[in-house]
Amino acid sequence: MSDELSSYFNDIVNNVNFHIKNFVKSNVRTLEEASFHLFTAGGKRLRPLILVSSSDLIGGDRQRAYKAAAAVEILHNFTLVHDDIMDRDYLRRGLPTVHVKWGEPMAILAGDYLHAKAFEALNEALKGLDGNTFYKAFSVFINSIEIISEGQAMDMSFENRVDVTEEEYMQMIKGKTAMLFSCSAALGGIINKASDDIIKNLVEYGLNLGISFQIVDDILGIIGDEKELGKPVYSDIREGKKTILVIKTLSEATDDEKKILVSTLGNREAKKDDLERASEIIRKYSLQYAYNLAKKYSDLALEHLRKIPVYNETAEKALKYLAQFTIERRK
Amino acid sequence: MSDELSSYFNDIVNNVNFHIKNFVKSNVRTLEEASFHLFTAGGKRLRPLILVSSSDLIGGDRQRAYKAAAAVEILHNFTLVHDDIMDRDYLRRGLPTVHVKWGEPMAILAGDYLHAKAFEALNEALKGLDGNTFYKAFSVFINSIEIISEGQAMDMSFENRVDVTEEEYMQMIKGKTAMLFSCSAALGGIINKASDDIIKNLVEYGLNLGISFQIVDDILGIIGDEKELGKPVYSDIREGKKTILVIKTLSEATDDEKKILVSTLGNREAKKDDLERASEIIRKYSLQYAYNLAKKYSDLALEHLRKIPVYNETAEKALKYLAQFTIERRK
Repeated sequence: MSDELSSYFNDIVNNVNFHIKNFVKSNVRTLEEASFHLFTAGGKRLRPLILVSSSDLIGGDRQRAYKAAAAVEILHNFTLVHDDIMDRDYLRRGLPTVHVKWGEPMAILAGDYLHAKAFEALNEALKGLDGNTFYKAFSVFINSIEIISEGQAMDMSFENRVDVTEEEYMQMIKGKTAMLFSCSAALGGIINKASDDIIKNLVEYGLNLGISFQIVDDILGIIGDEKELGKPVYSDIREGKKTILVIKTLSEATDDEKKILVSTLGNREAKKDDLERASEIIRKYSLQYAYNLAKKYSDLALEHLRKIPVYNETAEKALKYLAQFTIERRK
Repeated sequence: MSDELSSYFNDIVNNVNFHIKNFVKSNVRTLEEASFHLFTAGGKRLRPLILVSSSDLIGGDRQRAYKAAAAVEILHNFTLVHDDIMDRDYLRRGLPTVHVKWGEPMAILAGDYLHAKAFEALNEALKGLDGNTFYKAFSVFINSIEIISEGQAMDMSFENRVDVTEEEYMQMIKGKTAMLFSCSAALGGIINKASDDIIKNLVEYGLNLGISFQIVDDILGIIGDEKELGKPVYSDIREGKKTILVIKTLSEATDDEKKILVSTLGNREAKKDDLERASEIIRKYSLQYAYNLAKKYSDLALEHLRKIPVYNETAEKALKYLAQFTIERRK
């Protein structure tokens, strides 16, 4: 990353972190601690970077953008807290998950609290704007939460199936991941009253970037390093997640290989040897395919970016970099 | 109840139910079923009645009021779904709770989905209004969710304590219950751009009504009929809930009685005999006291109601009736 981009990103992250800390406060100490827990563990702040860069790209208001960026990041963290309960994950960003540390009831509550706080941040970001902009911004925000919930419901229902299609997978990750990327980019436009045409291209940039991001996430779940990822390797296999890699492999592997795979997928008692054998089969059939797919969506994101008139060139570089980073990252 | 009031309430409930059904839809069938489950079991729709009556009282817009009323009722149901998981309750309104029927992961998700849907309903209620009204309405709505979460966190932390004070109890039920009553009344004013003075009195009407309602709820938890309540009697004792009745009793009972009480409170294995003995002690020391307190807050609600200029007399009767009903109800 160039020095220019590095300091551009740092500046955004520091400002957004400041606002997140301001919003996520509570008079009930345990609730505040449980709610703030995942923020202390770092995280890439990708959604805030997308939102503020999108706002900058068209010459938008930085203060509003920071608050809206806090909104999407808080929202993202709410979904992580609840997903970790649902998926029974015990590590996230190298830390014990919220339900492991504070118990399930408090983790449910902390997620709910963050959910409300996300709306508070967005409401403050919009303060002083006209009713139409409020309506539009809240519509996009609310719609993405609904689609995220539907995506998570699909993801869970896939765990007990072995016949999930690539089309179903695409629909699921659009919900689970890509919607919030898309929402982040769109809000960068909406809070600055950008034209419908610009907003449409921001939506597509974010959506395609998010799809690419999730495919790479699924790849890293198979080839990634446990320490770098901050979560147990092979947890996707253990939970029976029907990632694009698994779907592709199930459709192309030999009967013997399929047998091994099916007996390991979703088997929470699976031994390390079994997991490694399953992972090897998956890699053989799907790795190249998945990478090509991720690249395709990253390129699509860039295509839409090019259609937006540029007010700030650093922001344009930033959004291009994010599309590149998404497919090149190792964690 | 008079025929006038009965048809006034029926009309509101039918219209609000229509909007609730419209909002709570999903492309993912299980998610929709789990989310809609508690609505099918009836419920008093008290918060919608408060909201629409408050709106009518000052001559407000019925269509907006119905949607805002759907918002508070959906929000209320989201909190019920999650509270039932946290409190490990298995019956609600005579039906198995959502997590019992669909499992915890889906119940967490359904609650989240309803949470977002509540915002969607409010956003639609406000559509076409100015930015300032959007900001105000969302602020009140978001603030009550945050205070509700804090109230629930307090309620849970009280379960392991025997030294909870009446002051702490009041703060907890303000959050857990009264805030949403208050929010409902306030929104009836805000969506019609009522004056700050009217909104202030609506807020106080709802808050005091809500406090009164929760105290009576706690009373019914001890003296209520299982069939009428639609949930297991004595579950408050079994869960160790520090209601006003328990707090009062702990401060006045003899040492022997206290011993019995402390060993039964929060003991999920407690036998029916123990529960009945504990309940008897509680009744002796606290029942009259709690009723008087509920009456006091109901009167306070009426006092604030009298300060609001009346545009619609049926609505005024309705709001008076609700304050009366709250302390006279048997379920």
